[in-house]
Amino acid sequence: MIPAGPTKRNGPATRIPEATHVETAVEYLRKEQKRHLDELIELCKIPSISTKPDHADDVRRAVEWTRDKCRSAGLTAEIHETGGHPLVYAEWCGAGDDAPTYLVYGHVDVQPEGDLKLWDAGPFEPTRTGDWLVCRGSADDKGQVLLYVRAAEAWLQTEGRLPINLKLLIEAEEEIGSPHLEPFIREHAALLKCDGILISDTGLARDGQPAITRGTRGMVYKEVFLSGPKHDLHSGQFGGAVQNPANALAAMIAALHDDDNRVTIPGFYDDVVDPTEEDRAQIRALGIDDEQFAADLGVPALWEGERGYTAQERRSIRPTLDVNGLTSGFQGQGANTIIPARASAKLSMRLVPNQNAAKISKAFDAHIRGLCPPGVRMKLTTHGAEADAYVTPSDHPALRAAVRGLREAFDQEPVQLREGGSLPILPMFKEALGADCVLLGFASPNCNAHGPNEKVNLPDLDRGAEAIARLFAHLAAS
Amino acid sequence: MIPAGPTKRNGPATRIPEATHVETAVEYLRKEQKRHLDELIELCKIPSISTKPDHADDVRRAVEWTRDKCRSAGLTAEIHETGGHPLVYAEWCGAGDDAPTYLVYGHVDVQPEGDLKLWDAGPFEPTRTGDWLVCRGSADDKGQVLLYVRAAEAWLQTEGRLPINLKLLIEAEEEIGSPHLEPFIREHAALLKCDGILISDTGLARDGQPAITRGTRGMVYKEVFLSGPKHDLHSGQFGGAVQNPANALAAMIAALHDDDNRVTIPGFYDDVVDPTEEDRAQIRALGIDDEQFAADLGVPALWEGERGYTAQERRSIRPTLDVNGLTSGFQGQGANTIIPARASAKLSMRLVPNQNAAKISKAFDAHIRGLCPPGVRMKLTTHGAEADAYVTPSDHPALRAAVRGLREAFDQEPVQLREGGSLPILPMFKEALGADCVLLGFASPNCNAHGPNEKVNLPDLDRGAEAIARLFAHLAAS
Repeated sequence: MIPAGPTKRNGPATRIPEATHVETAVEYLRKEQKRHLDELIELCKIPSISTKPDHADDVRRAVEWTRDKCRSAGLTAEIHETGGHPLVYAEWCGAGDDAPTYLVYGHVDVQPEGDLKLWDAGPFEPTRTGDWLVCRGSADDKGQVLLYVRAAEAWLQTEGRLPINLKLLIEAEEEIGSPHLEPFIREHAALLKCDGILISDTGLARDGQPAITRGTRGMVYKEVFLSGPKHDLHSGQFGGAVQNPANALAAMIAALHDDDNRVTIPGFYDDVVDPTEEDRAQIRALGIDDEQFAADLGVPALWEGERGYTAQERRSIRPTLDVNGLTSGFQGQGANTIIPARASAKLSMRLVPNQNAAKISKAFDAHIRGLCPPGVRMKLTTHGAEADAYVTPSDHPALRAAVRGLREAFDQEPVQLREGGSLPILPMFKEALGADCVLLGFASPNCNAHGPNEKVNLPDLDRGAEAIARLFAHLAAS
Repeated sequence: MIPAGPTKRNGPATRIPEATHVETAVEYLRKEQKRHLDELIELCKIPSISTKPDHADDVRRAVEWTRDKCRSAGLTAEIHETGGHPLVYAEWCGAGDDAPTYLVYGHVDVQPEGDLKLWDAGPFEPTRTGDWLVCRGSADDKGQVLLYVRAAEAWLQTEGRLPINLKLLIEAEEEIGSPHLEPFIREHAALLKCDGILISDTGLARDGQPAITRGTRGMVYKEVFLSGPKHDLHSGQFGGAVQNPANALAAMIAALHDDDNRVTIPGFYDDVVDPTEEDRAQIRALGIDDEQFAADLGVPALWEGERGYTAQERRSIRPTLDVNGLTSGFQGQGANTIIPARASAKLSMRLVPNQNAAKISKAFDAHIRGLCPPGVRMKLTTHGAEADAYVTPSDHPALRAAVRGLREAFDQEPVQLREGGSLPILPMFKEALGADCVLLGFASPNCNAHGPNEKVNLPDLDRGAEAIARLFAHLAAS
């Protein structure tokens, strides 16, 4: 159920003098740290694994718990049914029409626990280890979602109001690809109308070092199936006469990069905007030591990659094409002398801002068809949605407000990251609501999200709650 | 146990006037066809599957049955223990020192039955269907081994002697790669001394069309393992910075052929003797219709392959390099966005006469190492023995004798084939005994050896026995 009526409620329209009020809210947060931790532990105990149908009730419990917590914080909150797991919509829109309106997006569903033997304690038995809370969902994304509830509560309980109009959209299907999120957003575009979107589902640059994730890459994922003879052939009797699908596939994949390690798909780079000196400076500022980076990954050397760009640029602000899987012929132990009947490859491209995923997808298909030799047949599949890259505009007011909030709470200048992965919801939000996203994350780089012993650093979480409380004030002033 | 003493026994040294005596032997064969078929059925009922340890007793039974059959045919015969399954050595060496001595090689072990649902009757319940006997081992190689026993019996029962000294080496480990054959041959080189070796473990060119397999290709089989990062990486976070082992492997495989589809390994073609016009004429004489050939295999077109050679030449008298298997990354349904930690390929090369397998093996290793980029580590494995190609010398007396025997028995000129597959025992026999092999086979091209419903054409078998009885006479006269 969604509250009916206008999304901006009446209320005092005067600006709040931030300097005084925010300190009261921050003081409240500090006092309530212990209780807020207990609440996080409560939520983490619920095994809200969205991929497992037998955990559907747990997912619902986590959603209900979140609704109740929003209400006790002083927000209005309702559960909304979708075709799958329900979601929570909460808001406090009493800051008036002159105040900006921000939408928070997060999720309370979690990944499966994986191999239980790899966990030191039960994955849903939150365990305190020094400054850390170990538990599935502690970092991704329960701990981070609750920061907004804590910050809202701090303002509402101390000042009786928020400096901005705040909307929260907390779903429970993120770990299964958010199948019902986009339809919900499109259907409720008026309700969700906002000046910007705040998301905390990313991480710090390193422990204690705040970061804003400025952009993500887009993605197109393809699978190429080649078939040759109707069944595997004796490589002695037919080798030389018959096009070997595995050899053909290797040649086709090899032809997707040129000698400068640039992707050969015609038009692939046409719309790519060259990184600005600022983009490159931000990456240099991260100060990643390539040698240490290679050693940590266990590779003998980093890839020489696309000529003209550093490894750290190539993994974040340049488009790439990678094979994700290869399958053909005999894969057992030892030798089997066959010409395989079939060979297939999974391939994905990471795209950068201004590249159009749909256009790249078509260009890939045409290019790979042209590379397919006459002796084999080809079938092409696209997996998942074609997602564009996304970058937060550098002049977005929430970006400046987030920088200030993070700086004050962490006593450190936040760095701005460009993330190489893909978050299809970012361009989707932009397209459906016309609003930009600001990503400020508080998970540790070694939080082990999706893995065993997922954990969150509690002092970082506490600083995160403070950063968000301060961010609200800066947004009001922006 | 092997009979001690000299391998050539005393006996009348006069040449047998072939024209009269061979017809008596052939007449005997025709009279005894029904009994010989019953004997084949008896042997085929024994499930002598050498790959399955629980069939070891059956394998021994088949070997004992063969020894007994050789004895009842008039040969001396003994079973010899090896480290694995036993073998039979039989002989009749009473033709005198002036007569040539020929060694027959064959095997009485069989492939597993495979999927029983694909068989019309039990794989070890020989079934007569028109001119065909359907049963595992009927074509490969029990039916063909017995032709020599039948022909020897015909001579010994009608003339009391053979026109040549005959030795039979019948093993029971062929389907597991003959692990104990070479040691046995080297240890018993004096016993096995001969002027040539006769092998019937190949096929007719088509039903009713006799063929001599003049040569086989050699083989070198490699597996290339690439490893990059210590575990699979997120392709978004690391794509561009890290060398993708699957992409690298594809590029390395692609680089193994040039634009003319020639293998790029330095020195690969150095020792290749260009086919003679006669070699090429023999292949043309087979009259294989490439379009029909492609249609039968289910490929949209034959490979364009090495420039300057026809498809039928490329699959028999030219060296090749084929991928036999590819493995990397995510192979399940759908998408998984990883940079795989590992990628591997099984690759084999078929070699032609005068190429040295050991030299090619080394050249491959050096070449592939040179192709391996710095961002991945490589490991190389060689599977199986490195086998040279083999070609029966065109002036071998047994070749001419076989042509005559086949021509007379089949009333058709035999064709000479170059087989693209590999038979490592041929160069091994040559090296260990200094003797050449002549391969005359009687299996139908669609006999389905190793597959379900393996079958043999009985009239072709009967003509085969006659051809061998006549071959004995022609060998004596050669």
